[in-house]
Amino acid sequence: MKTNKLAVIGVGHVGSYVLADAMKIGLFSEIVVIDKDKDIAFGEALDQAHATALPYMTNIDVYAGDYADCADADVIICAAGPSIIKTEDNETPDRAMLAMENGKVVREVMEGITEYTKEAIIIFITNPLDTVVYIAENEFNYPRGHIFGTGTMLDSARLRHVVANNYNIDPKSVTGYMMGEHGLTAFPVFSRLNVQGFGEEELDSIFVGKEPLDREKFGQKVVKSAYDVLNGKGWTNAGVAQSAITLTKAVLLNEKSVHPVSTTLQGQYGYHGDVALSMPCIIGRNGVEKQLEIELDERELELLHKSAKYIQETMKVAETGKGYIK
Amino acid sequence: MKTNKLAVIGVGHVGSYVLADAMKIGLFSEIVVIDKDKDIAFGEALDQAHATALPYMTNIDVYAGDYADCADADVIICAAGPSIIKTEDNETPDRAMLAMENGKVVREVMEGITEYTKEAIIIFITNPLDTVVYIAENEFNYPRGHIFGTGTMLDSARLRHVVANNYNIDPKSVTGYMMGEHGLTAFPVFSRLNVQGFGEEELDSIFVGKEPLDREKFGQKVVKSAYDVLNGKGWTNAGVAQSAITLTKAVLLNEKSVHPVSTTLQGQYGYHGDVALSMPCIIGRNGVEKQLEIELDERELELLHKSAKYIQETMKVAETGKGYIK
Amino acid sequence: MKTNKLAVIGVGHVGSYVLADAMKIGLFSEIVVIDKDKDIAFGEALDQAHATALPYMTNIDVYAGDYADCADADVIICAAGPSIIKTEDNETPDRAMLAMENGKVVREVMEGITEYTKEAIIIFITNPLDTVVYIAENEFNYPRGHIFGTGTMLDSARLRHVVANNYNIDPKSVTGYMMGEHGLTAFPVFSRLNVQGFGEEELDSIFVGKEPLDREKFGQKVVKSAYDVLNGKGWTNAGVAQSAITLTKAVLLNEKSVHPVSTTLQGQYGYHGDVALSMPCIIGRNGVEKQLEIELDERELELLHKSAKYIQETMKVAETGKGYIK
Amino acid sequence: MKTNKLAVIGVGHVGSYVLADAMKIGLFSEIVVIDKDKDIAFGEALDQAHATALPYMTNIDVYAGDYADCADADVIICAAGPSIIKTEDNETPDRAMLAMENGKVVREVMEGITEYTKEAIIIFITNPLDTVVYIAENEFNYPRGHIFGTGTMLDSARLRHVVANNYNIDPKSVTGYMMGEHGLTAFPVFSRLNVQGFGEEELDSIFVGKEPLDREKFGQKVVKSAYDVLNGKGWTNAGVAQSAITLTKAVLLNEKSVHPVSTTLQGQYGYHGDVALSMPCIIGRNGVEKQLEIELDERELELLHKSAKYIQETMKVAETGKGYIK
Repeated sequence: MKTNKLAVIGVGHVGSYVLADAMKIGLFSEIVVIDKDKDIAFGEALDQAHATALPYMTNIDVYAGDYADCADADVIICAAGPSIIKTEDNETPDRAMLAMENGKVVREVMEGITEYTKEAIIIFITNPLDTVVYIAENEFNYPRGHIFGTGTMLDSARLRHVVANNYNIDPKSVTGYMMGEHGLTAFPVFSRLNVQGFGEEELDSIFVGKEPLDREKFGQKVVKSAYDVLNGKGWTNAGVAQSAITLTKAVLLNEKSVHPVSTTLQGQYGYHGDVALSMPCIIGRNGVEKQLEIELDERELELLHKSAKYIQETMKVAETGKGYIK
Repeated sequence: MKTNKLAVIGVGHVGSYVLADAMKIGLFSEIVVIDKDKDIAFGEALDQAHATALPYMTNIDVYAGDYADCADADVIICAAGPSIIKTEDNETPDRAMLAMENGKVVREVMEGITEYTKEAIIIFITNPLDTVVYIAENEFNYPRGHIFGTGTMLDSARLRHVVANNYNIDPKSVTGYMMGEHGLTAFPVFSRLNVQGFGEEELDSIFVGKEPLDREKFGQKVVKSAYDVLNGKGWTNAGVAQSAITLTKAVLLNEKSVHPVSTTLQGQYGYHGDVALSMPCIIGRNGVEKQLEIELDERELELLHKSAKYIQETMKVAETGKGYIK
Repeated sequence: MKTNKLAVIGVGHVGSYVLADAMKIGLFSEIVVIDKDKDIAFGEALDQAHATALPYMTNIDVYAGDYADCADADVIICAAGPSIIKTEDNETPDRAMLAMENGKVVREVMEGITEYTKEAIIIFITNPLDTVVYIAENEFNYPRGHIFGTGTMLDSARLRHVVANNYNIDPKSVTGYMMGEHGLTAFPVFSRLNVQGFGEEELDSIFVGKEPLDREKFGQKVVKSAYDVLNGKGWTNAGVAQSAITLTKAVLLNEKSVHPVSTTLQGQYGYHGDVALSMPCIIGRNGVEKQLEIELDERELELLHKSAKYIQETMKVAETGKGYIK
Repeated sequence: MKTNKLAVIGVGHVGSYVLADAMKIGLFSEIVVIDKDKDIAFGEALDQAHATALPYMTNIDVYAGDYADCADADVIICAAGPSIIKTEDNETPDRAMLAMENGKVVREVMEGITEYTKEAIIIFITNPLDTVVYIAENEFNYPRGHIFGTGTMLDSARLRHVVANNYNIDPKSVTGYMMGEHGLTAFPVFSRLNVQGFGEEELDSIFVGKEPLDREKFGQKVVKSAYDVLNGKGWTNAGVAQSAITLTKAVLLNEKSVHPVSTTLQGQYGYHGDVALSMPCIIGRNGVEKQLEIELDERELELLHKSAKYIQETMKVAETGKGYIK
């Protein structure tokens, strides 16, 4: 009989945290760990297997495998490929190089997966995320909605953290998200941000004596917060891993939760299949079940187009590897 | 009012996993992250803080701090200092060098902690574990029982995993543990191993067609399993982090659970304050509340003494750093 | 050393579910069960104690006790007194009678508690909730904020359920709540209701083909939903027990979460200590840490005053028992 | 796509707790509630649905349904039929009457289920448990192993609780169980009982100053503990509900856990298809995957046969309803 199965592809800094979180959530019967370095996959799986022998732990069958083991997976999380890490001089990492390299990685991964299944829901974390998602969604004839990326789900958590921190409240009491690219051009949708219904214009007066909610400043705080993690520990993984696991649960249990994730636009905001970016989507057993086109104000719309344009430029770099770019 | 507070000292491969697990267990209100590299502590804490803004996550106040923040901690987990990592030639890591270096680390950490508290329960993971525990327990006039080490709790999980794997059953259905050093001389207490009451002598006949339960071979399997993780991924962290968190929960909720942990012997097996090693202990709000001296058979007793002797040799190396070794 | 302790007072339909949920949350070391029927308290505690011997369960010290056991409790949840249950002819239960009876119950409970502590956070579930909270908060010189009631937290969950159900999405993706009395005059704050930023006016157009979001109709749906439970099973307990436990976690871990709970107004909406009702509040280690006065539209404000007036009438009935009503 | 589905049949005192626990375990996407009283099923499902709109809760599709909804269920838990409740004079409840009545109930339930599926794993809680299991397993041509009963899993938890309580340790650190009938003739397997390897003969000396571990006395303590719950609160539900959910998790995640559950013997202890009773079994995705025949000592063997005989007598009563008893 069928039981719940997860595949984790790529167990570097990010994938190893995805695996660790997946072991704790009590939802999977079987987890296959796939990495181009088979020793690492083996070591990670075995280390986690040891932990299943401790009290409170679910007995999960966790093992190193290969693409063939994706055949009966319910969900595949891909964190393969090099990621943005701290450079010696703290400069902005070279995204173009990442795009070329991970353009190849995603194509290799998708070829590997599609040899065995087109039924699993695939969640990408690999960067540049939106470009990677676009390639996976559009080059392999995979069922629509079954592929998406964690996108700005992490950026949104950071936004809520920054806002909640300012007012000293639980970030779970903040409703808000970022849209666009998972990266520097992501933008907070301040027009919709609210703390249990208290909107952008009211927060300063209800929470007196706090830093005023200036769009520019809080947008920068979110960007800074991301780079603080990167420059502090050298990479980021905890937040994005938890994002991927939250999405995986929403899929497997068909929760129909609304999260900002990255997927190719189909007419929303005037984009017709020519860019993938993050916007609020309903996530269920079929992956992205619906994209919810929220009306943006003028400033936000401008930022959306700027972000889309930036993604499209990255997409071109990634296409180069494939050779069809002019 | 007092809320539940954890301090994690040292957030390398192991400490970062301890932190990640601690964030998920829903037990702490406040977690302080301490590392000699303040940037890393800051980055780890902030990455985890971002994750608290995702659904299902507890709003924990997680932040980078220093020893002063231990003042009101309930539990302190120490994973500071260099750990055993894969060497280029897959040789056994040089434990002596580790002993000298981490002898210094533990003394520094204990001085840091004791400046602010002697009330917190301190759980060590730093290797060589038994030596580190011995130093911490005996040189700082800390309340007896309040300091102990994860010890063979991980080795024991590996034993149960190896046994459970052979019979294709849940390791939670296996009762068994290893004693002695957390390291190469740890030994399985086969005379007490059982699967829901089925003892060493009966397992082969109830689970037919499996590899016979030979003490020598299964002991080696456990050692191999540890080195497979180390050689596979380059270090081990998942299993030991979960061990530390399980112990932390037992302490904070006063569970009185029996686990094999490392603490200085006080007459057990003929050792009087001259060695710390792992044996079954009751873990509650006061740390090690009782050491349970289980009767060993002849072969096991021999292994215990061999292991104790090995630990004592390592202890001497660590003492050198302090200069009182002859 | 201090560990986390909960007291549950009154283990009828509601309190027994509170106890069951508290056993599963992995947060308490000790739970004392108090009931005027000592046999029932004893039976409930022992039944739960048996369950702690199953895998995955926390070893909680759960036992039947009395008010003296509240002395070191962190949180006390009170579900004592008769509750609204299904009447034979499905008529609206007689709230006046309940007010008189539970007016006495809350005074008895508060006398019992305050003999031993004024430090615990007390969460009331006993109905008529707002009247009960008012009495407890104002007649016993208990620290401000340390007493509150689950209030419209359950009504709000019902509202989100009704809305989420209409659009076939996760209710966790809906931000919204009800205010006023926990009872028939509670009203949804439609002006602030949103699905990840999509407000009242936009929901119909983004989720086409669903029942239009009419305030009147959806308000009635919520009321009907409550009575459907009551008339179906004879009482309601699952939703309100989970509400109380969620609040307890927010208190114990100092989450600073915003929830609609009942507490005496101190100037909000023009009420100065003369009524207790539910409005969004920040819940932390000190109980209600701040009441957030959200601006209501004209229709909502009218409903608020109507609800406050209704509560005040119930309060008068409860006062009768005390004899100072004219 | 297939998601995890549970059916709960019968939501009285026990089934409603099973439902409540199932809602919290984060494993199910869909739960159907079935009861001959459709109003109660509807009320219970709706009350739980409301709770899904609270933070931390999984969005589960929980609804009242009928046998047709079992068609795609993974697991079905049956707690239908009248249960043993406290009698006015605290006399032993009339098991014979229960056998006749629930003999009919189980046949009705099995007819209902088998009209739609023979694939679901069915876990019975209905009493007299062993008789009910025997009927369900043997009269409906259901796949072997797919039907079993919670059996002495609860009695075993009580045994571990009683033992752990005597020594003031975590019951999770006790390995031990009861076998035979789920009821008065269940017997503890003292010869295999151990606290992390400390057996029956050693416990008194390692835990000094405690009540000596006398088989007779501790056996009576377990029986008394069960009746204390019954006489205290009027019924027992918390422990048995948690048992059923633990088994359900073991099935759904294929944990291969060893638990004492009730199923028809196939040669074990000399019984060939003529009695169902509890013995240690491996529980996985196929239900009872293996019965583990543990060697009993003389006294225990005698108790086993006595218990088996008692069950067979109850079986005859239940058969009467069917008319084929001589």
